[in-house]
Amino acid sequence: MSVLVVGSVALDTIKTPTGERKDSLGGSATYFSYAASFFTKLHMVGVVGKDFPAKHIALLKKRGIDLKGLEITKGKSFRWTGSYEGDLNQAETLNTELNVFGDFSPKIPDSYKDIKYVFLANIDPDLQMDVLRQIKKPTLVVADTMNLWIDIKRKSLEKLLKKVDIFILNDAECAQLTGDHNHLRAARKILSMGPKYVVVKKGCHGSLLFGKNEFFTAPAYPLTVVHDPTGAGDSFAGGFVGYLAQTKKLDKKSIRKAVVMGTVVASYNVEGFSLDRLKRLKKSDIIKRVNDVKKIVSW
Amino acid sequence: MSVLVVGSVALDTIKTPTGERKDSLGGSATYFSYAASFFTKLHMVGVVGKDFPAKHIALLKKRGIDLKGLEITKGKSFRWTGSYEGDLNQAETLNTELNVFGDFSPKIPDSYKDIKYVFLANIDPDLQMDVLRQIKKPTLVVADTMNLWIDIKRKSLEKLLKKVDIFILNDAECAQLTGDHNHLRAARKILSMGPKYVVVKKGCHGSLLFGKNEFFTAPAYPLTVVHDPTGAGDSFAGGFVGYLAQTKKLDKKSIRKAVVMGTVVASYNVEGFSLDRLKRLKKSDIIKRVNDVKKIVSW
Repeated sequence: MSVLVVGSVALDTIKTPTGERKDSLGGSATYFSYAASFFTKLHMVGVVGKDFPAKHIALLKKRGIDLKGLEITKGKSFRWTGSYEGDLNQAETLNTELNVFGDFSPKIPDSYKDIKYVFLANIDPDLQMDVLRQIKKPTLVVADTMNLWIDIKRKSLEKLLKKVDIFILNDAECAQLTGDHNHLRAARKILSMGPKYVVVKKGCHGSLLFGKNEFFTAPAYPLTVVHDPTGAGDSFAGGFVGYLAQTKKLDKKSIRKAVVMGTVVASYNVEGFSLDRLKRLKKSDIIKRVNDVKKIVSW
Repeated sequence: MSVLVVGSVALDTIKTPTGERKDSLGGSATYFSYAASFFTKLHMVGVVGKDFPAKHIALLKKRGIDLKGLEITKGKSFRWTGSYEGDLNQAETLNTELNVFGDFSPKIPDSYKDIKYVFLANIDPDLQMDVLRQIKKPTLVVADTMNLWIDIKRKSLEKLLKKVDIFILNDAECAQLTGDHNHLRAARKILSMGPKYVVVKKGCHGSLLFGKNEFFTAPAYPLTVVHDPTGAGDSFAGGFVGYLAQTKKLDKKSIRKAVVMGTVVASYNVEGFSLDRLKRLKKSDIIKRVNDVKKIVSW
């Protein structure tokens, strides 16, 4: 199954305890696509400005990612500047220049409208809904969000959740959305809002999968060096959705394994700035760490 | 194998979002003993004042816990007052009255000196060392500590660690002791200080076991209601050491399973104030949740 992703394509300026990068390739659709491309064919919808470096486009194309839906429009590309300190679990946003992304109105190419697997990366929930209206009959809709939308677009997000099969969010967002710090109670509230499954990402504490009569926990893969946590959530989603698209199954066992695939791809992603680590990654590396994760939870 | 525990026996006044208790039975040696008593015979060393309610003594005796080493001395018992809010992961200490515990100098009865399994609950590391000097030839020494001792008795703690086989601490203490937020790097530092294994407890995020060529993660058992987190760490240690004493093995597989036993006993403990939940617990309940934990990590 091929996968459609709609999200941001950005130029990130990032500082972490181990280094810094200026205007490196980033954005939710970018990380997601690259991560998912280890498993399946990707079709991207997004927008960049005329200033967007040709080498970044070339990198994604070389990876086989279909960029027909990536608009290159007059103006400057979306830029994000952030830094990480201490335990690296939380980014501090230093600057956001939406630029052409501020007027983003996703236009789904006709050739994309029959795609069955859809990932709605973190954008305004009204735009996420617009995307769904343009897709004919998706089999699987997976969505992400962020604290901003929970804060200022809660009604739109709640409307969207009725159309979402699997909702992925982090633990802070989960508490913010439900007003509940208890993950199990919070996840049950979200399940009652529409999704069949909820995945709660907890950074270095791993992730939780909730569904009707379903609960699964996956640890984070243990790392001694994290260079850049940017894109961890999106590369998690890429591994997760990519694996489901590859396996073409949506049973509980496959969804559990997809969580582990997401965990592992994200673990590689944070080992380098931007896509540096994923660019060197092989499918066999992913399988190796998946087997390692099995070993660290078994007794 | 029977187990010796040295630690506090206290009267706790506790407030949590779901209720409050005044002068309820608490203390590290209490929680540890009661939790471990599901698996093996316990011998306790501690001190209480003349005001200590006879019903608490009766409860521990009824459980088969040997209290020959529990001094009942002139003065008032150790009292701790604390409250929990929000996600319940952190206690706020409102008041500490050390009373007779302030002069505690553990005297190990002769009949305890041949005990092979020793748990040094959270007390001054100099006293923990005093205990070890009095024990003839222990097979397994497991120790806990707290932020206070890392802060003011680091040298003593480092000396103790050379004599400890398994060191149990929480994630905040792990970062404080090593100056490192990365659990894997931090645990390696602690392993280099002496212990063969380090267990890092992460509250609702589960726990991690580190050893030479060994890494294991156990999730927390998912709960929708936590009434009182007090004693979670000590009941974890009780399940952990108790199981190892019962199984009489110290191979990697047994230590992993002991972590799960600790996880499960702690999960029951926090479902009630003081020992309320453990008092109603059956061994079969523990086995049931251990099987549940296996299900939630498998794929």
